Amino acid sequence: MPDLIDQLAAALGPGGVLVAADEIAPYGADWRGLFSNAPRAVLRPRDAAGVAAALRLCAEAGVPVVPQGGNTSMVAGAVPATAGREMVLSLARMNAVRALDPAGLTIELEAGVPLRAAQEAARAAGALLPLSIGSEGSATIGGVISTNAGGNNTLRFGNARDLVLGLEVVLADGTVWNGLRRLRKDNTGYALRQLFAGAEGTLGIVTAAVLRLARAPRQYQTCFCALDSVAAVLDLFARFRDEDEAALYAFEYISGAAMAVNAAHMPDFRLPLAAPAAHYVLLELASTRRGDRLRETVEAVLADALEDGVIGDAAIAESQGQRAAFWALREHLSESQRRAGASVKNDVSVPVAAVPALLERAEAMLAARHRGARMVAFGHIGDGNIHLNALQPEGADPAAFMAGAEALMEDVNAIVMELDGSFSAEHGIGLVKTGAFAHWRAAPEREIMRRIRTALDPAATLNPGKLF
Amino acid sequence: MPDLIDQLAAALGPGGVLVAADEIAPYGADWRGLFSNAPRAVLRPRDAAGVAAALRLCAEAGVPVVPQGGNTSMVAGAVPATAGREMVLSLARMNAVRALDPAGLTIELEAGVPLRAAQEAARAAGALLPLSIGSEGSATIGGVISTNAGGNNTLRFGNARDLVLGLEVVLADGTVWNGLRRLRKDNTGYALRQLFAGAEGTLGIVTAAVLRLARAPRQYQTCFCALDSVAAVLDLFARFRDEDEAALYAFEYISGAAMAVNAAHMPDFRLPLAAPAAHYVLLELASTRRGDRLRETVEAVLADALEDGVIGDAAIAESQGQRAAFWALREHLSESQRRAGASVKNDVSVPVAAVPALLERAEAMLAARHRGARMVAFGHIGDGNIHLNALQPEGADPAAFMAGAEALMEDVNAIVMELDGSFSAEHGIGLVKTGAFAHWRAAPEREIMRRIRTALDPAATLNPGKLF
Repeated sequence: MPDLIDQLAAALGPGGVLVAADEIAPYGADWRGLFSNAPRAVLRPRDAAGVAAALRLCAEAGVPVVPQGGNTSMVAGAVPATAGREMVLSLARMNAVRALDPAGLTIELEAGVPLRAAQEAARAAGALLPLSIGSEGSATIGGVISTNAGGNNTLRFGNARDLVLGLEVVLADGTVWNGLRRLRKDNTGYALRQLFAGAEGTLGIVTAAVLRLARAPRQYQTCFCALDSVAAVLDLFARFRDEDEAALYAFEYISGAAMAVNAAHMPDFRLPLAAPAAHYVLLELASTRRGDRLRETVEAVLADALEDGVIGDAAIAESQGQRAAFWALREHLSESQRRAGASVKNDVSVPVAAVPALLERAEAMLAARHRGARMVAFGHIGDGNIHLNALQPEGADPAAFMAGAEALMEDVNAIVMELDGSFSAEHGIGLVKTGAFAHWRAAPEREIMRRIRTALDPAATLNPGKLF
Repeated sequence: MPDLIDQLAAALGPGGVLVAADEIAPYGADWRGLFSNAPRAVLRPRDAAGVAAALRLCAEAGVPVVPQGGNTSMVAGAVPATAGREMVLSLARMNAVRALDPAGLTIELEAGVPLRAAQEAARAAGALLPLSIGSEGSATIGGVISTNAGGNNTLRFGNARDLVLGLEVVLADGTVWNGLRRLRKDNTGYALRQLFAGAEGTLGIVTAAVLRLARAPRQYQTCFCALDSVAAVLDLFARFRDEDEAALYAFEYISGAAMAVNAAHMPDFRLPLAAPAAHYVLLELASTRRGDRLRETVEAVLADALEDGVIGDAAIAESQGQRAAFWALREHLSESQRRAGASVKNDVSVPVAAVPALLERAEAMLAARHRGARMVAFGHIGDGNIHLNALQPEGADPAAFMAGAEALMEDVNAIVMELDGSFSAEHGIGLVKTGAFAHWRAAPEREIMRRIRTALDPAATLNPGKLF
């Protein structure tokens, strides 16, 4: 009886199995530095048959398998839960863009294609893959689907799950489900593709997908606004949404405190407005219509908002460069925050109308219970999704601050759940939020999920420790 | 030990259980007249607790339960599979519109609310519930969710499943899952709401839901076009979609043969064009933007299409009355067809580009294998969804024609599946398409679904015989 590693090497061919400690160590560490659990080996199949062979062998041996794409999870969803025992299965070598149908507006991709490469393939065909996240250079299609990634265009196009028309998935026992359909409508049984999307690799491993595309916009109108209150931010959101919901591609919030972190830590920081404000909005409208007078619409809404005292100031991007500069302010927030010290990251959502209450209560709670912690709030406010981060007190010890991370997260979550919100709006559960999941989700919901998981992975070898 | 009916009557209170043969018979018959299986009794709970009590008692007794809303299924999804043994559980008495949040654009409804009542509640708040189907006067929210209903606005807003933000579901054992969230983003585990939506009542009974709404359009532009070929229909579709995908709310196809059936059987039939054509399109654009020049866009696209020979003629609705008249032509097709005789109904989809091949091959197949059957094709061509119906030969015996229904459906399905399509685009499986499901879906897909069903309904008491 050959050793499992030998069997896997035979099944996966040259370069298919890595075992050298220095080679496999990076696969065991999440980029946030929260976990470092070296796998037993790294498996690198070239196709679904290879994934199936690997899963079959591991299932027979009772060895857990952790699927990994770009390893950009915010919640340590793609690294082993324990050291030295689990296999990481990397989809990196399955990176072909298989087909693009410009008439049907669909694209078929292997799981290891980086999101940015997929976006570029769509763009080259005059289409838009309407999924955009900070880590898109590294994050892969299999990963963004398996974690149901969100991002800047969720407001208009939904999360990754909403873009999936078809999937190919390998189950724990090596069964391959070919569900690579590219139909807009197919009503034949359970929503399997939605179920596997966002399952964080616990029900099967996504090996390929068909995603729907949109037409590429012919124009964008991008604005940066200064406001006095969160209520005003929501007022502005309602004005744009009520005027042209279909054109509103993004509506992003940046608190004054978050912008101050940028000012201190972003190279070449420049505010596109005359003076700092308590709150900012970066919003973008887009249209595919030829000669659309979208600019007039944007100007009219902004003029009314200015006159009504809803905004204090606003700038409209006059060039692609200026548009990029506006977005850079939003996209550099995480990096600026990292440079400013340790942070507890809370990716939460509430019904949109409850966002002011959320921010107010969270700030009061931090002042009362986590003295010195600075609230750095920003995010996809149009979806009610706020990255409600807590930055360590200036000059404090990062490790000491992070020792209280769990308690701080739960204090935030208590407020969020009181407001009928969610303790994970877009990042998922992974290893980081299993405690919150167990605490905040009622028994029937957890039991339904547990039964489904057991039904599809009875030996519990797929990404153990994640979700629940 | 009291009798099950007595226990149910005690649990459900006055009017909660019907047993009189004449009262319960209608609940056993689907409206298409395909099945007539009287239930043992009809259960009419008033709330989720009542549903839970009923399911618990039936589960203990091993008695199957068939959930029923408006009983408008096209595939006999809401009537018993066998006579005299199964309970029909009607959601009719759970019909409250619980809440509407105009800021968050969400509505919370009990399962028994008729779709039209829900649409009207949304409209009264200046919002749009973007789900529209022929049976909306009778079909209920629980039914449209459980069958993942499609319809005219799927092109723009997706099927019913895509509108569901939250659900309340009672499982087979009486467990109540309260998932009535109203968040745009919530990434905490498996896609349960998508899974229960479209499960045809086999995984649990939907008792309430939160749906997302859209802003009500400020204007519609509705056009009726005459075309020479199906290729031209797709050309016109691409022109409108590429011009303004976001504004394209509906793009409906009516074949010349289908229109001829209308001409023969629709009261006050009037074609809004100068002369009959081989193919027609009814399309609708909408916009929420104030003073939007949508009419100019529509006219420009139509003018180009006319000049390029893509369309032969076109009319734009000049009034709400004319718009309604255009839509009446589309909506009367099923009724006209019913008056013309017996029909085999095929609700199929293919990738949009494959629609011309589908229609061509289906027509040739009918001529070769089902002599005299008339192809009556219409549907949501923008989604690739064609109602590819076969009408009995003129003057033939309806019963004799319908005796060959199964064979004819499978002949159509063989063509559809060769074109990578689906044998049920929006109607679901119910009792009618279980054979096609077993035949055309590969073993791994059926096995995954079977495992999920068994996990959630181990005693197999929920809507047995449906799906698989």
